[in-house]
Amino acid sequence: NSKLKIFTLNSNKELAEEIANAVGVPLGKSTVTRFSDGEVQINIEESIRGCDVFIVQSTSAPVNEHIMELLIMLDALKRASARTISVVLPYYGYARQDRKARAREPITAKLVADLLTTAGATRAIVLDLHAPQIQGFFNIPIDHLVAAPILSDYFLEKDIDPAELVIVSPDHGGVTRARKMADRLKAPIAIIDKRRPRPNVAEVMNIVGNVEGKTAILIDDIIDTAGTISIAAQALMESGAKEVYACCTHAVLSGPAIERIDNSVIKELVITNSIQLSEEKVSPKIKELSVAKLLGDAIVRVFEEKSVSTLFD
Amino acid sequence: NSKLKIFTLNSNKELAEEIANAVGVPLGKSTVTRFSDGEVQINIEESIRGCDVFIVQSTSAPVNEHIMELLIMLDALKRASARTISVVLPYYGYARQDRKARAREPITAKLVADLLTTAGATRAIVLDLHAPQIQGFFNIPIDHLVAAPILSDYFLEKDIDPAELVIVSPDHGGVTRARKMADRLKAPIAIIDKRRPRPNVAEVMNIVGNVEGKTAILIDDIIDTAGTISIAAQALMESGAKEVYACCTHAVLSGPAIERIDNSVIKELVITNSIQLSEEKVSPKIKELSVAKLLGDAIVRVFEEKSVSTLFD
Ligand SMILES: Nc1ncnc2c1ncn2[C@@H]1O[C@H](COP(=O)(O)O)[C@@H](O)[C@H]1O
Ligand SMILES: Nc1ncnc2c1ncn2[C@@H]1O[C@H](COP(=O)(O)O)[C@@H](O)[C@H]1O
Repeated sequence: NSKLKIFTLNSNKELAEEIANAVGVPLGKSTVTRFSDGEVQINIEESIRGCDVFIVQSTSAPVNEHIMELLIMLDALKRASARTISVVLPYYGYARQDRKARAREPITAKLVADLLTTAGATRAIVLDLHAPQIQGFFNIPIDHLVAAPILSDYFLEKDIDPAELVIVSPDHGGVTRARKMADRLKAPIAIIDKRRPRPNVAEVMNIVGNVEGKTAILIDDIIDTAGTISIAAQALMESGAKEVYACCTHAVLSGPAIERIDNSVIKELVITNSIQLSEEKVSPKIKELSVAKLLGDAIVRVFEEKSVSTLFD
Repeated sequence: NSKLKIFTLNSNKELAEEIANAVGVPLGKSTVTRFSDGEVQINIEESIRGCDVFIVQSTSAPVNEHIMELLIMLDALKRASARTISVVLPYYGYARQDRKARAREPITAKLVADLLTTAGATRAIVLDLHAPQIQGFFNIPIDHLVAAPILSDYFLEKDIDPAELVIVSPDHGGVTRARKMADRLKAPIAIIDKRRPRPNVAEVMNIVGNVEGKTAILIDDIIDTAGTISIAAQALMESGAKEVYACCTHAVLSGPAIERIDNSVIKELVITNSIQLSEEKVSPKIKELSVAKLLGDAIVRVFEEKSVSTLFD
């Protein structure tokens, strides 16, 4: 007889609204504004005593603002006697800072996990972490959802003959992800094999696998400045692909990304709404799919203490 | 035979430079920039293994950016095997969110103290906390410095006859601060006693104490939008003060502050450099004093494991 409450902050109100609809509860009443000097002011306008609370926030840009909003909300909910507090992070910022690649680097992905716990999170629900190891950065239960089925189903509907299809990973790190999508679409995979023959010589894009005459679908977790993906698409066309689609879960799309996509050979870029696209990021090539039902299902299952693992594939 | 290192981040590089000069060490080599998507990128460009490290950062506006920079730097320093890491916070942001004034409010001043500890701080050096109780929010040693002597000494040099002087607190919360300055200047105090006679009726500014014919010095810890201080100055003039000075440690000066100061009866506003004034915040009325020597002395005393308490008064 506890109650389920879903709150949103400022990063992705549209998705939060959709999730609340999917779950069938109204969004919790709260406002997150700024004092004159820029400090975050939070008002929770309904009692949450004894409730199981879920906060939806993507730690997308402006990432530091969104993280601090989330931490302060956690503090307020904790002090207001929530029974449990789950952070629902459709996009987990700082995920690429997940190891010391050079001396004296921070491991910010771990830091953020610890900050969330310190502030009061008792559970996390995340989607397509840049590296699955980031699950181990959390000392609280974490459910890791994947969007590949949503992306795959979209391409399934295009009804392309599997024999004319190839799923392409833009780097070695993403092969597992490409493999999963290929299984669902019953298609083979290919891999872009970047290598630098000698220092200070331009990278060569080799393609491992056969793409000739095929429809290629590039899949990645994050598309940020879109440099890699547009060059990869170019390389695929030069190797004889008939057409190239690209897809990703997290459309960061910073800096020159939109321009690069527009000018690239990519026919369509399929993304999810894990990050809310800001208004200036429009392109006729972008197709957005929703992860609201996936996240809503996970919330209901966590609330009802049922297994979430069926949502993993 | 440990080594003292001082690093700065982006909030107040000028003050950090001055502090390093006062201590007689060069600033540690590091850069704090942003990736294309706005995530903080930190490079520490010298070994700090086994060192006693001090990081100077005011958590002034943009407060959330400055807090996250500090937390990420702490993570990097901790992983780079610093012996101790002291955060030097000339201005401690979110200090006004230090209690639940209403239901379901966060206590962000406590949250930030916990975040700093989680990220790796082993000690804090702070200046004029909005409430001295915030010291208790830290589970690590904290040294609390006060700028009142620096402000007082500036007015002492004006050589005003103590009999013609009065030190004024703009509210009841600041009386202790005014009392300390009055002791140093051998002057009496007065208090602005705001009260609302009935609900929905404008506040009345009563003055407790004699200000007639005197030079009044208003003292506060933070001046933010400058509303209180300019109205207080007005009330003092209306009660017969000869002239009104204002002073504070932390010049937040957000929103309409500069305009209000310029249009007020305040003759001069004396501030410290605990917060770096942004370039658009210029006023011929503002006089800035440096807290670099005070903070530098505290750093040296902490490093040499000597008492810092002599710097409290
Ligand atoms: N926000 C970011 N934007 C671009 N590069 C990043 C970002 N955060 C971390 N990195 C770098 O990306 C690399 C890790 O990316 P990956 O090899 O794809 O896991 C590391 O060398 C990081 O320094
Ligand atoms: N950054 C801020 N700007 C203005 N007011 C604030 C800020 N942070 C907290 N407050 C409010 O200021 C009040 C505390 O101020 P004080 O009474 O001076 O300690 C509380 O009611 C807070 O809600």
